[in-house]
Amino acid sequence: MQSAGAWVYTRLSRKMKILTGIGLKLRTGCLFAALAASLSAQSSPHKEIVKLVEQNSPTYIQASKTIWEYAELGYHEEKSSTLLQRHLKEAGFGVEAGVADEPTGFIATYGKGRPVVAILGEFDALPGLSQAAAPDRSPVKAGAPGHGCGHNLLGAGAALAAVALKQYMEANHVAGTLRYYGTPAEEGGDGKVYMIRAGLFRDVDVVLHWHPASSNAVMNGGALALTSAKFLFHGVAAHAAFAPERGRSALDAVMLMGTGIEFMREHIPSNARVHYIVSNGGAAPNVVPDTAELFLYARSPSLATLDGIWARIEKIGQGAALMTETTLDIKILGSSNNIVANDALATIAQANLEEIGGYRYTAEEKHFAQALQKSLPAGSVPDSELAASVEPLRKFDPNQPSASTDVGDVSWNVPTIGFVAATFVPGVVAHTWQAAACAGTSIGQKGMLVAAKTLAVTAADLFASPQLVRDAKQDFLRQTAGTTYKSEIPAGQKPPIDYGKM
Amino acid sequence: MQSAGAWVYTRLSRKMKILTGIGLKLRTGCLFAALAASLSAQSSPHKEIVKLVEQNSPTYIQASKTIWEYAELGYHEEKSSTLLQRHLKEAGFGVEAGVADEPTGFIATYGKGRPVVAILGEFDALPGLSQAAAPDRSPVKAGAPGHGCGHNLLGAGAALAAVALKQYMEANHVAGTLRYYGTPAEEGGDGKVYMIRAGLFRDVDVVLHWHPASSNAVMNGGALALTSAKFLFHGVAAHAAFAPERGRSALDAVMLMGTGIEFMREHIPSNARVHYIVSNGGAAPNVVPDTAELFLYARSPSLATLDGIWARIEKIGQGAALMTETTLDIKILGSSNNIVANDALATIAQANLEEIGGYRYTAEEKHFAQALQKSLPAGSVPDSELAASVEPLRKFDPNQPSASTDVGDVSWNVPTIGFVAATFVPGVVAHTWQAAACAGTSIGQKGMLVAAKTLAVTAADLFASPQLVRDAKQDFLRQTAGTTYKSEIPAGQKPPIDYGKM
Amino acid sequence: MQSAGAWVYTRLSRKMKILTGIGLKLRTGCLFAALAASLSAQSSPHKEIVKLVEQNSPTYIQASKTIWEYAELGYHEEKSSTLLQRHLKEAGFGVEAGVADEPTGFIATYGKGRPVVAILGEFDALPGLSQAAAPDRSPVKAGAPGHGCGHNLLGAGAALAAVALKQYMEANHVAGTLRYYGTPAEEGGDGKVYMIRAGLFRDVDVVLHWHPASSNAVMNGGALALTSAKFLFHGVAAHAAFAPERGRSALDAVMLMGTGIEFMREHIPSNARVHYIVSNGGAAPNVVPDTAELFLYARSPSLATLDGIWARIEKIGQGAALMTETTLDIKILGSSNNIVANDALATIAQANLEEIGGYRYTAEEKHFAQALQKSLPAGSVPDSELAASVEPLRKFDPNQPSASTDVGDVSWNVPTIGFVAATFVPGVVAHTWQAAACAGTSIGQKGMLVAAKTLAVTAADLFASPQLVRDAKQDFLRQTAGTTYKSEIPAGQKPPIDYGKM
Amino acid sequence: MQSAGAWVYTRLSRKMKILTGIGLKLRTGCLFAALAASLSAQSSPHKEIVKLVEQNSPTYIQASKTIWEYAELGYHEEKSSTLLQRHLKEAGFGVEAGVADEPTGFIATYGKGRPVVAILGEFDALPGLSQAAAPDRSPVKAGAPGHGCGHNLLGAGAALAAVALKQYMEANHVAGTLRYYGTPAEEGGDGKVYMIRAGLFRDVDVVLHWHPASSNAVMNGGALALTSAKFLFHGVAAHAAFAPERGRSALDAVMLMGTGIEFMREHIPSNARVHYIVSNGGAAPNVVPDTAELFLYARSPSLATLDGIWARIEKIGQGAALMTETTLDIKILGSSNNIVANDALATIAQANLEEIGGYRYTAEEKHFAQALQKSLPAGSVPDSELAASVEPLRKFDPNQPSASTDVGDVSWNVPTIGFVAATFVPGVVAHTWQAAACAGTSIGQKGMLVAAKTLAVTAADLFASPQLVRDAKQDFLRQTAGTTYKSEIPAGQKPPIDYGKM
Repeated sequence: MQSAGAWVYTRLSRKMKILTGIGLKLRTGCLFAALAASLSAQSSPHKEIVKLVEQNSPTYIQASKTIWEYAELGYHEEKSSTLLQRHLKEAGFGVEAGVADEPTGFIATYGKGRPVVAILGEFDALPGLSQAAAPDRSPVKAGAPGHGCGHNLLGAGAALAAVALKQYMEANHVAGTLRYYGTPAEEGGDGKVYMIRAGLFRDVDVVLHWHPASSNAVMNGGALALTSAKFLFHGVAAHAAFAPERGRSALDAVMLMGTGIEFMREHIPSNARVHYIVSNGGAAPNVVPDTAELFLYARSPSLATLDGIWARIEKIGQGAALMTETTLDIKILGSSNNIVANDALATIAQANLEEIGGYRYTAEEKHFAQALQKSLPAGSVPDSELAASVEPLRKFDPNQPSASTDVGDVSWNVPTIGFVAATFVPGVVAHTWQAAACAGTSIGQKGMLVAAKTLAVTAADLFASPQLVRDAKQDFLRQTAGTTYKSEIPAGQKPPIDYGKM
Repeated sequence: MQSAGAWVYTRLSRKMKILTGIGLKLRTGCLFAALAASLSAQSSPHKEIVKLVEQNSPTYIQASKTIWEYAELGYHEEKSSTLLQRHLKEAGFGVEAGVADEPTGFIATYGKGRPVVAILGEFDALPGLSQAAAPDRSPVKAGAPGHGCGHNLLGAGAALAAVALKQYMEANHVAGTLRYYGTPAEEGGDGKVYMIRAGLFRDVDVVLHWHPASSNAVMNGGALALTSAKFLFHGVAAHAAFAPERGRSALDAVMLMGTGIEFMREHIPSNARVHYIVSNGGAAPNVVPDTAELFLYARSPSLATLDGIWARIEKIGQGAALMTETTLDIKILGSSNNIVANDALATIAQANLEEIGGYRYTAEEKHFAQALQKSLPAGSVPDSELAASVEPLRKFDPNQPSASTDVGDVSWNVPTIGFVAATFVPGVVAHTWQAAACAGTSIGQKGMLVAAKTLAVTAADLFASPQLVRDAKQDFLRQTAGTTYKSEIPAGQKPPIDYGKM
Repeated sequence: MQSAGAWVYTRLSRKMKILTGIGLKLRTGCLFAALAASLSAQSSPHKEIVKLVEQNSPTYIQASKTIWEYAELGYHEEKSSTLLQRHLKEAGFGVEAGVADEPTGFIATYGKGRPVVAILGEFDALPGLSQAAAPDRSPVKAGAPGHGCGHNLLGAGAALAAVALKQYMEANHVAGTLRYYGTPAEEGGDGKVYMIRAGLFRDVDVVLHWHPASSNAVMNGGALALTSAKFLFHGVAAHAAFAPERGRSALDAVMLMGTGIEFMREHIPSNARVHYIVSNGGAAPNVVPDTAELFLYARSPSLATLDGIWARIEKIGQGAALMTETTLDIKILGSSNNIVANDALATIAQANLEEIGGYRYTAEEKHFAQALQKSLPAGSVPDSELAASVEPLRKFDPNQPSASTDVGDVSWNVPTIGFVAATFVPGVVAHTWQAAACAGTSIGQKGMLVAAKTLAVTAADLFASPQLVRDAKQDFLRQTAGTTYKSEIPAGQKPPIDYGKM
Repeated sequence: MQSAGAWVYTRLSRKMKILTGIGLKLRTGCLFAALAASLSAQSSPHKEIVKLVEQNSPTYIQASKTIWEYAELGYHEEKSSTLLQRHLKEAGFGVEAGVADEPTGFIATYGKGRPVVAILGEFDALPGLSQAAAPDRSPVKAGAPGHGCGHNLLGAGAALAAVALKQYMEANHVAGTLRYYGTPAEEGGDGKVYMIRAGLFRDVDVVLHWHPASSNAVMNGGALALTSAKFLFHGVAAHAAFAPERGRSALDAVMLMGTGIEFMREHIPSNARVHYIVSNGGAAPNVVPDTAELFLYARSPSLATLDGIWARIEKIGQGAALMTETTLDIKILGSSNNIVANDALATIAQANLEEIGGYRYTAEEKHFAQALQKSLPAGSVPDSELAASVEPLRKFDPNQPSASTDVGDVSWNVPTIGFVAATFVPGVVAHTWQAAACAGTSIGQKGMLVAAKTLAVTAADLFASPQLVRDAKQDFLRQTAGTTYKSEIPAGQKPPIDYGKM
């Protein structure tokens, strides 16, 4: 049986050839998406799946709220992971837990044979962003973690998609393997990289993922390659009042390294990013610190450029050690790649996202949004209708703001497509208390439903169309031609389970 | 009954007048001390007291070792304080615990009436200096506190002096009140300042104290006035990769404040000291830190000069806030004064310290010392005979290395004298793992006995000579004439019980 | 008589309506330009003008070389300005010199009545870039100025265009006023801003300009708004060894301001630019500097954003003063606006630039180019065919590299269009010795001829088509609607004739 | 013939033995000086010499004023040197000019045979300290040099002493060689070091010198050893707006090196000094600077300690280069040693300075002093009677404020003694405009007369007493035992004639 989704895809492919034949360089996708939307609106498999998502949604809305309350940091998402595993098991998935030396990592599987379609789930929180579902800064527990990146929605929404699709596949005898990857520690722990190294993605044909945001849009490539490390300096302790001249301050080295990084900013490409904290700034003011540490991330749209910048960052650390007569240990902690685009998958994902469409705020939600927006910086002019619409498909612009994800590494190994859904009030960016607040409200939950539906119908299209899977594979080969996947994480390194405390 | 000590004092006073009458400006004390030593060597009350100290010493050597093992941080010296209280109670002192809102503060009292002579005890450890009694860096528990300032010896030695003296007073029906002040959190918590504010020193006539060091010497004045504060900056969080331009980094403010402090160093008097740690350097590299904190100490031989420097430090903090569009909260955490000299008390203390004399290392101790000295910075040439001798009495040189102590505040309220005893291997300075190692060895314990004896006989001299107490009072009035005691700790502030974690 | 250029324009306008009528958002211009090029290739007025440019070219090639040798800094281009004035006078222009309080500013005029079309000329050099016309770093005089921005070509090429066009107008009785603006000190002196303030652009209908570069392309808008200032700190001098604590170092303030700027970089939009030198870093190491100065430029694609950044820069300066107990004088030295786009003028300029076309390197020029490119940073991959082609018309991308020019201010007052011509070897950027080298070679001169021809035929089109002038005006009004021209240069400020030394 | 001075010296030596025999550690000198003063007050050779100084004084007061007006920088004191040479020639000295490759260096000689006694003269000014003889900041020419160290008085006063003494020697047939060393560029040019290397001090027995200050006091040793260098960084230029990522900023390296120096301050001995200027901070803000330079002095009371600090300074420079991908050239520019004490010479110099005594201000001078003192920093409490008295002889305290001088190098080669005389209003320190102002007034001139008289009578004592010369030699050998003279100035380096501009 051929699904309507696949049918749309076929027609789109043909149309594309016609249009490109006339030699115009259009922003592909804008047009197609519109066509696709109109064509697939009546598609009955999609309808059935959407209905299943809606039927299952109360459980997963509740799960998203519970995980939001758990707010567990990367590699320590014990309760969150257990909750999702339980729901998936109850829904009939086989679950393998503790994969790839990651206690909270797991894979839930339904079905068998080709194709193997994987949906990614994340559920880790961020330190310091504890926040009530309120429009003003109200930590639930001051200093505690919070879901400032909405991974409570991400993990629950992806599970909802998997469960609904499984019910559809079962009911309709759809062949193939559906997997849900419970991937820990996206926020700096690179859980997926260790899963790749453990071979867990080796047999996967296509990977689907989504992420909370303030709009609905397909992400065809993008994200910034990232390397992170801790720069630990060792000096000589001394009584800071009595004999400071005997001390060699590791904190001085940290301060000078940080300052050196700031001076480098002007001389790296504008779209690169370097940011750091002082993860150990000395034990007591009256002792010249003999250890101090700077924890740094560097990012760039291109891993090659990032490698060049990284070499300079290490020089800055070494220069700081030289300046202060201290020594330096560099521990690479994490690294993730940029996301490889996949035009074949992007086209179908765009069609489906447009088919599903956005949603409108209730009066109460509008009220919440307006109150929350008062806390945003002057000059950010949020578009209040963002949640209701779907962005046109765009090429990734390396100069546009972006972030990083270990989904990047997955995309260098398997044809991958993802999208964002409008879970945050317009104007809100990830990694803020405002985002954490939204992730606990009905706004976040509505966005999660958009995501779950889009994931489920897109996966269904993939199960229905071998050609689509082949096209995805072919585009993957084209986009990665001449390059080899690599990760800056040292070979043999185990998942840094306690990276948040290191 | 008039003690031999007082007799010596009287003769010294007379001699001084004769000598000063001939109009020469001698370094007073050098000569006197030598005379005093020869004169008092046979003094029988001193002999009796010294014997009592030695009899009681096993208990307090053990106590010093136990407290060294406890290694409890300021205001949390529960076990250490309890141990000393128990010993003092068992020796017949009345104990009032939890004084001045300080859970580990206490006063042990014996006798009644005038004069009131107080001996100070301290027992808090330093963070990060856990160390075995070994000549190489061997933490008992990595990162844990350790007695790098030897307060285990200080508190136990002072208690030993009190107990021995009490036995002597009892046996000889000496009138007057002897007190032991269990003063918590000398290392930055200013336990004594809150005791002063609670009026606990109001009726004291003379205060005696000692401190571990690598030589035997009377401290007639000195120490650096100190003010400490936490500079907490508040900025605006933002995703550090996606929208760093929306963030206002509190860590940037900390880095710039630190850098500003470094630039100020050249332009303050050379004998001032400013040192800091980064007590909060941000939560996660991928979030622009909205809070960050610098914890700073500033010191100067003169509180007036310190106040001028402090005003500039606050300006530097404000400048850093202005530069980064952040806001700044300054929380004064601690403050202590320099020590007021007392020539009358110094003369008698010097005589007594010389009478007691130093001690010699055993072959084993020499071996330990030599091994330990290998870890000292090149260029420090330790004098191996330091422990055996007593330094001549010197005027405090404000350009010589010094530290700070809340004994300073006591000395602005009560005639006070102190001395150091050779508990550390020569070349070792306080607040190092080397000092912590020594504080757990027989070298430290031998120095502690020198201290206990000197404290006890000096207190005995005070009980024996009302004139000496009057002279001490008169010199106190002369040295503090025209000034008023003040503390930079805000009025009404409670002891910062958790200052180590703030 | 209606020129072919105007005719093309008319047809383009009609076509544009048709195309836009079908509702597609095309990158306008690409298509039009192609049509225009094919249509106007035979245009005989253009042919006549191009011929006149070529006939006059030897004189102006020689002038470009002479000015390249003069290499005079902004506001001190006495010999360069005089040379161009002489040529223009000899060609029949009336010349008014010393306009707008600028000794080297002048206006050369031919003809009368409307429209008034102005061509801009510049002729100032850059400090420190003295360089022979050689492919390796060979200063003619070490440390002396050089034409690293190719303004020797700019000024001579614009004059060549004016002279040729004047001959054509005279021969063909073309009505209207043609002006050449000799505008000094583009490099930081903002000569044009003072000309605007003096009312010298008030009656101008259209302004044309060009700039040396490594490709041939119309610039429809763009450039970065810029504000520059000197931050002069005043402290207290002191002997740096004897009494540094008495000093308050103005250099410390400069160092801290610079460092503060570096810390700000992360928190401004990526496409903004801030750069500075230490223009006064103290007189002698043994004296604490009582004056020191930082000379800073800030830029942004948007003047509004720039103003926000500028306010923060001033705060950083004030913060540095606060930190160091110094005082700060801020002297705004220059300011220029971004360039307002003009779609009507861009369309015709693109058509004409494509009509004129690029040029090819001789074997010798290729040899020079390859030798020069060896000095370029690894990773810059220059396209060797750039000079031969013309870039398609593009919208200004605010995230692409850009620079600043006081042409921006002109464009906020008069409809303005400009383009670049390929005078530099591909890969070479302005403000380098490589650019200075090219500006003295036949490569630079060939690019200058492309520019002179394009300027002349475009101006001729404007004289021929009142509609084109009206459309330019209308587009200007549309693009500037709701905004008001302003300059950050303080009202009443005179041209900073000695800004290079200030 | 034996002078009274020598007679005093003999008696002092005998007395010293007696006093030291009683075993008291007195501050030697205080007492001796007092005795010496009373004993030598009637000495008739001293009287005669003092009279000759006074007779010759008008010429040299005028010379001091003329040199003050010349205010020539180091190695460029052409007019100042010529003027002094002319006066010395006219007084009967033989003059050798241009010695040791120093155009303004010279030696003026009278007499022959042993002993050879040399008086040092300096005459160089300081940049930026141009100042009228007025009590408020009034540059004669803004930015021009000024005599902020009073070397106009130093050179003229020393010449006055030489001329008067020559007249006395001639009249009294005193044997021996008297030399005046015209030593250029004391302010950073180390003129005397090159003279030493040229062997010009090889046959000298004793060197006498003086320096302007705000009190009258013998300097027995002291001064800080000093090394200075220029740290020149080379980077890669780039357009700072268009392609800053291509640049490697030499200014960044300078900024980071300076910041690194500031961070080192806490961790060197408090009595060390490091100070710097940015001698090249970039050419233009819109070009990433490819060269930038930091000019630094480091000082310490001990050359060995200084060498350790210097190694760290070089590491800081290298660290800054590493951090910024620039390269570093270090050019040692100057170096001078601390001054070796000479107790034998100090005793006689103290006796003579006390014999000559200070002077009192006129009402007008008091008025000037009070007006000038208003410009001094709050907290400096000048003693208005300083000029009238003579300080007691003190041991050099390495923690007291000090400066550096190439007299230090002389003192490592020849027995040397010097003193300061009260030429500056109390509270004024050298290297300020206030010092430059005083150096042009009668206050400065009166101090100069104190100096000239003391120099002349002390030299006369040396000519009169071979024993004194022998004792000086013996003390020199004692003080320098076990050490070797060295200079950090690279071997073979020529005097850096243009060091002020380098």
